[in-house]
Amino acid sequence: METEWTYVIESSRFNIIHIPKCKYFLEQNMLNEQVNRQIILDSRPTGYPTSSNFRMLESNIPSPKEGQVLIRTIWLSVDPYMRGRISDAPSYTPPHPVGVTMPGGTVGKVVVSLNAKFPVGTFVSISSGWQDYSISDGSNVRIVDPASVPISTALGILGMPGLTAYHGLFEIGRPQAGETVVVSGASGAVGAIVGQLAKLAGCRVIGIAGSDAKIRYLLDELGFDSVINYKAESVEDQLKDSCPQGIDVYFDNVGGSITDAAMDNLAYKARIIICGQISQYNLQEPDLGPRNLRQLLVNQASMEGFIVGRFADKSESARQRLTDLLMQGKLKYMEDIVNGLENAPEAFMGLFHGNNFGKMLVRVSSDID
Amino acid sequence: METEWTYVIESSRFNIIHIPKCKYFLEQNMLNEQVNRQIILDSRPTGYPTSSNFRMLESNIPSPKEGQVLIRTIWLSVDPYMRGRISDAPSYTPPHPVGVTMPGGTVGKVVVSLNAKFPVGTFVSISSGWQDYSISDGSNVRIVDPASVPISTALGILGMPGLTAYHGLFEIGRPQAGETVVVSGASGAVGAIVGQLAKLAGCRVIGIAGSDAKIRYLLDELGFDSVINYKAESVEDQLKDSCPQGIDVYFDNVGGSITDAAMDNLAYKARIIICGQISQYNLQEPDLGPRNLRQLLVNQASMEGFIVGRFADKSESARQRLTDLLMQGKLKYMEDIVNGLENAPEAFMGLFHGNNFGKMLVRVSSDID
Repeated sequence: METEWTYVIESSRFNIIHIPKCKYFLEQNMLNEQVNRQIILDSRPTGYPTSSNFRMLESNIPSPKEGQVLIRTIWLSVDPYMRGRISDAPSYTPPHPVGVTMPGGTVGKVVVSLNAKFPVGTFVSISSGWQDYSISDGSNVRIVDPASVPISTALGILGMPGLTAYHGLFEIGRPQAGETVVVSGASGAVGAIVGQLAKLAGCRVIGIAGSDAKIRYLLDELGFDSVINYKAESVEDQLKDSCPQGIDVYFDNVGGSITDAAMDNLAYKARIIICGQISQYNLQEPDLGPRNLRQLLVNQASMEGFIVGRFADKSESARQRLTDLLMQGKLKYMEDIVNGLENAPEAFMGLFHGNNFGKMLVRVSSDID
Repeated sequence: METEWTYVIESSRFNIIHIPKCKYFLEQNMLNEQVNRQIILDSRPTGYPTSSNFRMLESNIPSPKEGQVLIRTIWLSVDPYMRGRISDAPSYTPPHPVGVTMPGGTVGKVVVSLNAKFPVGTFVSISSGWQDYSISDGSNVRIVDPASVPISTALGILGMPGLTAYHGLFEIGRPQAGETVVVSGASGAVGAIVGQLAKLAGCRVIGIAGSDAKIRYLLDELGFDSVINYKAESVEDQLKDSCPQGIDVYFDNVGGSITDAAMDNLAYKARIIICGQISQYNLQEPDLGPRNLRQLLVNQASMEGFIVGRFADKSESARQRLTDLLMQGKLKYMEDIVNGLENAPEAFMGLFHGNNFGKMLVRVSSDID
């Protein structure tokens, strides 16, 4: 197989691509083999999360019992949805408790096994959170085959973000060839996949992103038809120019004034997918915007929010489709990697400032040794 | 047939139920047989419409040609959607031109016929606008049978408002027995039908209306489970109390802060029907409200705007169903009648102040002579 993994920027083991406000940096394998480091939620953020909301604990590495395995975390995913989890505002899951290890998707390796189905050396995808080690009886893991695709893809294009893009676009957006699809947060873990899938479906794709580098990537590498820099241009004017027939599908990752601008440029029977509202997650007071539901009325448009778990019964077929497209070189992805579990808070906090470029991952340990 | 037409308040010919700010009042048949009075749009309103936006012209009564009929207007419907038509803001139809007779649904009687399909004396439903007489070749009329139901119902429960309620509720809201349905503008032409249909579908129904009389009517006569007076109570608090499991279906006729309150009380997979936004139609500056699309996200809820014409292929079956329910006494309706074409502007303007109680109609001429 000759597939080239373009835009996996990591050029060597433990090469740091980007650390927004790094507190610590260990040049070599950060894993202390003697303890299990765990980053707990120490207090609920008010507004933007800060380092003081997190605390690192050290405990003994747990011992698996019969039927269980010990998993060493290799990759940890930090994602915007976690901001909702650590808030006590009503949501689709109960608030994550203060004093408990931060939740999150991970990819790890079985290092001790008392379960024949998962021998030592098996790579697994699991939600074991912000810690070095975890125990599992195998019921909550998915085996990842390192021979076919990089294992980190289980947290990105072949994981939650990929499935979110796929189901949101196809189940709710239902794009038709020739239609105009607009995606905000376009260079992010979800947005970049949405745009590529929409292109493959024969749509015109307009992205909205926040830096020249992101815009060049989306235009030159992912083949977006047009990209708007929301920090430098009037999104409303640019949308009007680039969508003369209106927006048929708007995939919303951000909310706020960017979404207002999309609402003012809808086509007849437009579909709006409410996937994320990252501009709103850290506000202490409710944000005010124009009351624009009349745009739904006059355009007979629809809007729907969703959580990826709703389409769980279709996950395997979607993942297979995404894997096929990836293997065929029809999908590309970008990873933004921070090294060291201790830097997970910084990586997480950077998401809300648009610091990441592609899927934000924390490298917790090596996948080789 | 023993059906009693409850809540048709009109007790005698030309009995005025309600004239918000009546300028003229003619005690007997207002129809001047010599001329065709036409109320034209004289200027576009800025904010709330005023009398100065309308002007009455008189022209000769037109003469039908071969294949045509002359129709004398009996009932004229005034509806909130007309506010959008006389604005030049982008909408689903081009703006109604200044200087042209105001548009609107009517029921009339054929008084001269050169078309054998529509003999003199035939009652027809047509959109002939704010005038005493109109000409038709029959292609744009629907015959109304006065023997089965009052002909004015063709403009209310069996006309545009009835079909709007029916299609919006069943095609977009898809209520299930046992679910909680909330409707704003609950005593209006559409809202009162929505609530009754939802009750017939086995739902709990909570209405939102603006006077004690309206509330008593909805509770005592239409069987709503609960009604909130938005002028006297906190809609948000009352919705929280009356919808402990959240709102499954919200039928929105009003928009604004009432809709904000509904958004804060959604159930999982709630459906929101954007039918009208009357609170917003006369604003000169965009109204600001909380950005609350995250509520759609965490509840995986959907929202859809619609115009009744979209379901034109299902209109006849819906009208038949509504007719059956009306004949069986399972649906009730209320009409609010203003006498005299010259008072149509006042009737129309009153809609935006909640002055009407039920379907607002203008009696233009007698249906008997």
